Amino acid sequence: MKTKRPKLDLKNGRVELTYGGGGRAMSQLIDELFRPAFSNTLLDELADYAGFPGGKRMVMATDGHVISPLFFPGGDIGCLSVHGTVNDVAMSGAKPLYLSASFILEEGFPLGDLHRIVTSMAEAAKAAGVSIVTGDTKVVERGKGDGVFITTTGIGVVEHDTPLGAGEIRSGDKIIVSGTIGDHGVAVMSKREGLSFGTDIQSDTAALHELTALAIETAPGLRVMRDPTRGGVAATLNELAEASGLGVRLDEASLPIRPEVNGACELLGLDPLNVANEGKLIAICSAEDADKLLATMRAHPLGKNAAMIGEMADDPHHFVQMTTSLGGNRIVDWLSGEQLPRIC
Amino acid sequence: MKTKRPKLDLKNGRVELTYGGGGRAMSQLIDELFRPAFSNTLLDELADYAGFPGGKRMVMATDGHVISPLFFPGGDIGCLSVHGTVNDVAMSGAKPLYLSASFILEEGFPLGDLHRIVTSMAEAAKAAGVSIVTGDTKVVERGKGDGVFITTTGIGVVEHDTPLGAGEIRSGDKIIVSGTIGDHGVAVMSKREGLSFGTDIQSDTAALHELTALAIETAPGLRVMRDPTRGGVAATLNELAEASGLGVRLDEASLPIRPEVNGACELLGLDPLNVANEGKLIAICSAEDADKLLATMRAHPLGKNAAMIGEMADDPHHFVQMTTSLGGNRIVDWLSGEQLPRIC
Repeated sequence: MKTKRPKLDLKNGRVELTYGGGGRAMSQLIDELFRPAFSNTLLDELADYAGFPGGKRMVMATDGHVISPLFFPGGDIGCLSVHGTVNDVAMSGAKPLYLSASFILEEGFPLGDLHRIVTSMAEAAKAAGVSIVTGDTKVVERGKGDGVFITTTGIGVVEHDTPLGAGEIRSGDKIIVSGTIGDHGVAVMSKREGLSFGTDIQSDTAALHELTALAIETAPGLRVMRDPTRGGVAATLNELAEASGLGVRLDEASLPIRPEVNGACELLGLDPLNVANEGKLIAICSAEDADKLLATMRAHPLGKNAAMIGEMADDPHHFVQMTTSLGGNRIVDWLSGEQLPRIC
Repeated sequence: MKTKRPKLDLKNGRVELTYGGGGRAMSQLIDELFRPAFSNTLLDELADYAGFPGGKRMVMATDGHVISPLFFPGGDIGCLSVHGTVNDVAMSGAKPLYLSASFILEEGFPLGDLHRIVTSMAEAAKAAGVSIVTGDTKVVERGKGDGVFITTTGIGVVEHDTPLGAGEIRSGDKIIVSGTIGDHGVAVMSKREGLSFGTDIQSDTAALHELTALAIETAPGLRVMRDPTRGGVAATLNELAEASGLGVRLDEASLPIRPEVNGACELLGLDPLNVANEGKLIAICSAEDADKLLATMRAHPLGKNAAMIGEMADDPHHFVQMTTSLGGNRIVDWLSGEQLPRIC
């Protein structure tokens, strides 16, 4: 006779090695925890793959998430793992449609926390208009992982004809950021260091697919969009400078930074330009379209603090230079020696 | 001035936390280790996403790989992470085309080992006719991971009209396995336990896309294909029994099992039916097409030991039953309490 296992204890239970074994215990984890949260017609076929209708021009992006702590002010690894990948797809100008999710769980991880994370993923996916269509679960022994790592891969379809890419950037193009910078990294670092800054700094983690769709619709002169995650605005702009063969000129006074984020950065010895964001994008567009694009972004809740922060310039060294608030000039380099490990 | 970093030491260097920081060190790891191995036109665009031409009917599959040890007889986590996902895509009947790869590295992991793994991935991808088009790298602190975990996601296009799925299975359909069972699991367990069985048992890790394409071409009565990985043949057949609403009748004498694998299983207390395979598929097809399909598989190097091992039968309990070599009858259940952790 087949033996019936008791229901998973989603309150006090813990991840066991058998949950990754491919047998009945894994099947139970899928049936009682993952499926109820993610349920959709494609996922419910329950094969090791998912079929979906494609489009002519498609986009794929993947992101592993290893953030510590798993729960932080403004979010958790669950919603972050959806936003991170949805945003990578959206930055290409594609409409994000499908996600896969691969979990690497540590033996002993509380099922209650996993349930919370999975529920957060499901809500984020719903809000972003994407379906989690296939997945995988592995379990490693205690001490060989760190709670949960989640790798998501996203698929999107391109439905417009604006050519986007660093190669489209021209000298004189304007640089717009969709809101305040450094919120995510500072929220996570504060929690990690046990710091409190009076006001609670929240991660900005959010899906930016509506903002990217609006940008494409509004600005025919849109050149490229990027989300400044790990490495922050500084890394993204340095990459774009190198890829475009131009330089970047920033105006420090125009950078939107929350005072409490600025304060925390001073305390932690960080430059907000190097700090990760998870709900912001940088758009580069023709000078002609810049005001219109800025106004459009500001009319959206996720872009209300959008600002024009600089422009592209001819520069054989591909430097990112910034006019400081004191009128000086400094080179904004990538983060090199210093580091913010496991920020996403 | 921008500082130039010395080249990565791919012989004696080790993974540092900065390699996951989104800054110059990470960019260097990508430029000096990943790009030279995986180079292709889509990847070389170097955005956080990859564009590719789609098709009308597409398939997506994902697999996290946490195998221990990383190097085992017959393969390593690199080629395994390509084969595992290529096979999941291929089982759907799709042609695998694109892969993403997400690496979670442990601080201190030898760069030489990473280079070996990445080279093995690149070779496996080339052999399987797929391109690794986008990826991600994260680094966790020493003791928070275990060397390297790799999640790959695969995309394929369906180019035929045979309806495949457990719902297509009929009573009387035949069950074919493409070759010897249990090789992968036993190879890994032997290495892990430090056992030697005289002859070296090798993992069967391989890409099965040619075999699946041949099966579709040969057998209009093909119902479903599955690769019996974690949980082995027993788990796959139990899943198919439940999903089809039928039962499975196996004939033990017909199971292709290497004598040395059988011997090792006895020593390790394992049932070969529960042991993982990474280069085998189970095909269920109409009785009419079974001989033709078997002959076609046997003509391919990866199917030369293919065998017809049983058939589907009406069974309200959806049991997998096996006539033993001694003429008895036993129920083949999923692996339940026992386990083979980190076998893939």
